[in-house]
Amino acid sequence: MPTKSTEFFNVVPIADALALLFEHIQPITRTETVPTTDALDRVLAVAPTSPLDLPEFVRSTMDGYAVRAADTFGASATLPAYLDVAAPVQMGQQPTHTLQPGQASSIHTGGMLPDGADAVVMIERTQPVDDGEIEILAPVAPGENLVQVGEDVAQSAPILPAGQRLRPQDIGGLLAVGVLQVEVIEQPTVAIMGSGDEIVSVEQTPQYGQIRDINSHVLAALCQQAGAQVQQLGIAADTYDAIAEKARHGFQSADLLIISAGSSVSTRDYTRDAIDALGQPGVLQHGLAVKPGKPGMVAAAAGKPIIGLPGNPVSATLVARQLVLPTLRRLTGEPAAKHQPTVRAVLTSNIASTTGREDTVPVRLTSDDQNTQADPIFGKSNLIFTLINADGFVQVPLNSNGLKAGSVVDVTLF
Amino acid sequence: MPTKSTEFFNVVPIADALALLFEHIQPITRTETVPTTDALDRVLAVAPTSPLDLPEFVRSTMDGYAVRAADTFGASATLPAYLDVAAPVQMGQQPTHTLQPGQASSIHTGGMLPDGADAVVMIERTQPVDDGEIEILAPVAPGENLVQVGEDVAQSAPILPAGQRLRPQDIGGLLAVGVLQVEVIEQPTVAIMGSGDEIVSVEQTPQYGQIRDINSHVLAALCQQAGAQVQQLGIAADTYDAIAEKARHGFQSADLLIISAGSSVSTRDYTRDAIDALGQPGVLQHGLAVKPGKPGMVAAAAGKPIIGLPGNPVSATLVARQLVLPTLRRLTGEPAAKHQPTVRAVLTSNIASTTGREDTVPVRLTSDDQNTQADPIFGKSNLIFTLINADGFVQVPLNSNGLKAGSVVDVTLF
Repeated sequence: MPTKSTEFFNVVPIADALALLFEHIQPITRTETVPTTDALDRVLAVAPTSPLDLPEFVRSTMDGYAVRAADTFGASATLPAYLDVAAPVQMGQQPTHTLQPGQASSIHTGGMLPDGADAVVMIERTQPVDDGEIEILAPVAPGENLVQVGEDVAQSAPILPAGQRLRPQDIGGLLAVGVLQVEVIEQPTVAIMGSGDEIVSVEQTPQYGQIRDINSHVLAALCQQAGAQVQQLGIAADTYDAIAEKARHGFQSADLLIISAGSSVSTRDYTRDAIDALGQPGVLQHGLAVKPGKPGMVAAAAGKPIIGLPGNPVSATLVARQLVLPTLRRLTGEPAAKHQPTVRAVLTSNIASTTGREDTVPVRLTSDDQNTQADPIFGKSNLIFTLINADGFVQVPLNSNGLKAGSVVDVTLF
Repeated sequence: MPTKSTEFFNVVPIADALALLFEHIQPITRTETVPTTDALDRVLAVAPTSPLDLPEFVRSTMDGYAVRAADTFGASATLPAYLDVAAPVQMGQQPTHTLQPGQASSIHTGGMLPDGADAVVMIERTQPVDDGEIEILAPVAPGENLVQVGEDVAQSAPILPAGQRLRPQDIGGLLAVGVLQVEVIEQPTVAIMGSGDEIVSVEQTPQYGQIRDINSHVLAALCQQAGAQVQQLGIAADTYDAIAEKARHGFQSADLLIISAGSSVSTRDYTRDAIDALGQPGVLQHGLAVKPGKPGMVAAAAGKPIIGLPGNPVSATLVARQLVLPTLRRLTGEPAAKHQPTVRAVLTSNIASTTGREDTVPVRLTSDDQNTQADPIFGKSNLIFTLINADGFVQVPLNSNGLKAGSVVDVTLF
């Protein structure tokens, strides 16, 4: 007979569950040193400082002529200044001459300013007279069209903060100042297990009554996208011992244990008990004020997080985005995402909800010349194709009882 | 003396340059078969169809009792229907019994409906009388609380279209129907080269007048994020032969050749000539109606794309996002991105622009309780730290002469 035992729980908003979890977990402190060129998407463990001024020499930002600015004061198209052409600046070489008053040296963008010069006149504001003389058609101020020493970054200045996930340009900035290696947080390891007698591994052909385990693989992909390394534990049979043993193994070997529970009440109860057996404080919160995903669970033992997800794949996927991804950031020391990029779209149907619960509704986006529309995909929450047919999702806030057709919504893309 | 030779060109909008390029290039046709579990972010070469109905059996969506719906008609809390408790449905097993009129079998979410039953009454709407009998407190219609065979996806139905980049849930959907391998487009290979006597490899200590080559590495990271494999060709010296030889090598071995040109006019001219020497039609467009990045170039030879980028790292990075990323999608057959997720923010300073030119301005985002603000980071375009200090960028449309402080803008995050 089905029992109601653990399933009628008090729910809390996701943000509260995460805050509670974060009180009880420790960020990863293991670091490794990797070549900067291989450090894309890795998270800095320490804030590197610049070993040098960048640029290390005064550079031109224009093609033109290096000059003494004072020689150009008052110059105009009708009354040009006349300057003698000195040795040109060669790209990649330090000029060997000192620019004398009344002289100009041709220079390219990025070229090193010769001693004596203090500005560059862009080529468009000059006119050759002959090989030895040019006209300057407009004045320049001292410093004009130059990048000064240290203007990009100064010696000893921090380049990036610890906790920064390295973007392409961050790699560029580090390499620009010769930081060829960086100390980064080790990639978090995530152990993923399922439970339930109705679940078989994807390689197996399910018998009637069984289904393939897709949650482990959807969760693995989500974690990999977030920069984690995944250890697949497979499916535990529906006994306490089987679930507890697999959970202990995963808990010991990984930074985060994720359990997607089977659908029977016994599996759910065993899962909860097995998590509590891992250590203190155990289950922190079972029950989330969300739909789908109400049976989601956060737990911690010995400073490590454990996340319990519903068995049904749509709930598991949507709740994992809200629970697992922030937890992985927390583990690597990356600050919480401040800004969530979204696509604004006009909702095509009403979405009903209930105050006190945050709903996540998959939507499909369509665009015409005028607008982007978001069509909610309502479906039984265990149909994975609901998510396959969706481009993203809309969230109905906790304090709202729904969204009206025609309203403008923010869609987070998958 | 600096010359103006090739540098005063007619510019076209990015969209036009890309449309022209796409007329002259062929998508990659090489495919490979990979395990579905390893296919995250790969692009499908063919549209897989479902080999079976999912689910393959009628499943319950609730914990409760499988019943014959007709037995519940008229039931209410005050006048319940009484049903005999038959054998329970075990998770993961096909029921061996046929439900008789007047019977109910306990069932969990995901359990297989027994023959004879046509609906499930949720546990909350039942009441045990004793071990052998239950009260049904509300009627159910035939089909209620069930997922029918093929309701998630039907046998032979397409699962996903060719050209789809696989997301976590797509992996789940494929595995759910037992598609364990998928045929995907080979990852595009991108050859990246730089040129210019002022550029040295990042491992070298630059002399005065020289700088480290960061463009190759920023571009590599961008391409890797987009799923490409990168071949670093290094820096060609500022001679036609050196540039042409490196370009030919990269062109022959990769699906896309990217050249970030040095700053001297000779390098730029050599680069253009070297690209033209690769084959027909050669350079298609040199000059983009953008800032920064005006000297960007698109070219094609023998159906393969070649993209020329400005030497300065900020221009190269920002233009690469606009030219290289769409080209990589085109090469793999992935449709053009329809929806660009952004963060809406209030601009804190005016951004001046010019009609007929699309400006890209890096911004830093700050948030208070009320609003998100976007602070434009104005800087000389060759300062890479302009991009490091930015969270994203704002684009000023072609037909605008700027954006006013206080206006709401869409910020694309890096």
